[in-house]
Amino acid sequence: MEVIRNIKQMQNISLKLKGEGKTIGLVPTMGYLHQGHLSLAAKARQDNDVVVMSNFVNPLQFGPKEDFATYPRDLDRDNKLAENVGVDYVFAPAGEEMYPQGYNTYVEVKGEATEKMCGRSRPGHFLGVTTVVLKLFLIAQPDRAYFGQKDAQQAIVIRKMANDLNLPIEIVTCPIVREEDGLALSSRNTYLSAAERKSALALPKALNAGKQMIEKGERDAAAVRKEILRVLESSPGVRVNYVEVVNGLTLEEMPVLEGKVLLAAAVLVGKTRLIDNIDLEV
Amino acid sequence: MEVIRNIKQMQNISLKLKGEGKTIGLVPTMGYLHQGHLSLAAKARQDNDVVVMSNFVNPLQFGPKEDFATYPRDLDRDNKLAENVGVDYVFAPAGEEMYPQGYNTYVEVKGEATEKMCGRSRPGHFLGVTTVVLKLFLIAQPDRAYFGQKDAQQAIVIRKMANDLNLPIEIVTCPIVREEDGLALSSRNTYLSAAERKSALALPKALNAGKQMIEKGERDAAAVRKEILRVLESSPGVRVNYVEVVNGLTLEEMPVLEGKVLLAAAVLVGKTRLIDNIDLEV
Repeated sequence: MEVIRNIKQMQNISLKLKGEGKTIGLVPTMGYLHQGHLSLAAKARQDNDVVVMSNFVNPLQFGPKEDFATYPRDLDRDNKLAENVGVDYVFAPAGEEMYPQGYNTYVEVKGEATEKMCGRSRPGHFLGVTTVVLKLFLIAQPDRAYFGQKDAQQAIVIRKMANDLNLPIEIVTCPIVREEDGLALSSRNTYLSAAERKSALALPKALNAGKQMIEKGERDAAAVRKEILRVLESSPGVRVNYVEVVNGLTLEEMPVLEGKVLLAAAVLVGKTRLIDNIDLEV
Repeated sequence: MEVIRNIKQMQNISLKLKGEGKTIGLVPTMGYLHQGHLSLAAKARQDNDVVVMSNFVNPLQFGPKEDFATYPRDLDRDNKLAENVGVDYVFAPAGEEMYPQGYNTYVEVKGEATEKMCGRSRPGHFLGVTTVVLKLFLIAQPDRAYFGQKDAQQAIVIRKMANDLNLPIEIVTCPIVREEDGLALSSRNTYLSAAERKSALALPKALNAGKQMIEKGERDAAAVRKEILRVLESSPGVRVNYVEVVNGLTLEEMPVLEGKVLLAAAVLVGKTRLIDNIDLEV
């Protein structure tokens, strides 16, 4: 496995591989890898001749009061994990390499997909995501790119960008990986104290309560949302950021549940913001 | 020569050619071809194995009160001209093909490059340009793309976008092609009456007056600008939109002229907006 820090070098490798007819799978990450990331890499390994994993904590997708500076980083450990799962190239550029002095080009998906949920609580977040992901696509030239369903809204926004811009890249979404007790894996879980870790379980518990209502026949989105909210609000140590029960493809309102549905929530546990979701077919 | 109207079809052709190691030159146009466009195609023909010309009047780069509906179109004539100059593929999609219902992704270069000159008089224009050009790049997958120096600001903005987004594409700018009397070729010249056509000559004349001042040793941008303005304002039938004497690479202010300098102006002749420029090395 090779670790590459220079854009031109990475791009030249990818263009050469493409010229040889090789397929490339890209796994974009912000590092501090967990089993969620590694499941994406394993899937990319199955599907492609070459696997590129990017490891870049993207400043552009953090708000000024968010945790860019404290976001956990451990590139040495990440590289060992990546190598073990069969990654061929880790692309780990410095901030100035991706956004040199005078950088001024931005890609934005407008509309409902970016305006609600995490887009509302984190203004500019998705503009940062789409911009860095487009750059990573153009640098690594993948045939397929892998994203976790954990960031359901991100996957929808990236799929929309890829579709609108005619990117010849298949966007693959992989299932959420959870701890045994149900907590979705996240690099940010490392922020949680033992007590907070316990409180955080309210998030998967509440979403599961919503899912069970639907499985028992409830089709009223408002009623399902109310139940998820009820569980969260009755959980000590948890502050609700949002709860949504919406169209799982577009995030649009879906008063009567039918087809692909997304139950999604964001909460604050202490100072840590956690998101989780369940997608299902009604 | 093949005329292609479908995005996927064009992209598949380009990806296949790239897989075979062929180089592709792209000439993006809005059609109604003149010798300026054809000089780009001829240069592309020299430099590449395959030449793709796009022919698409991009609604996104026109303001609501601008001439999108009346912009001249003649695809049959364009195709003959393109074939004669050695174009291999004309990509001429319909509006709905490029911007289907629900389209919502935009690429923007921010800052001075897009805020002044045509960016000030045509808000949203460059967002439309960068968005369509990025789409055309992703569809046609060129190694090189050709733009006219006539649209000097556009070329600078596109070069900035390509650089910021790490597009593996060489942006080639070709010199302005002029009528014998000095008027820069433009599809919009067709709007001019005989009298307006005469008035329009003030534009190259004024810019040339500025150039001559510099050649005689003037290094004060304000003085050169003033002279260009004076010539334009003393010309009947011409209303000045802007005159700029700026850094030819970045469009930034350059009080004392040195290095690459751009003299640029936009005027209204009747209802027709015309632009022209001279770039020189001081």
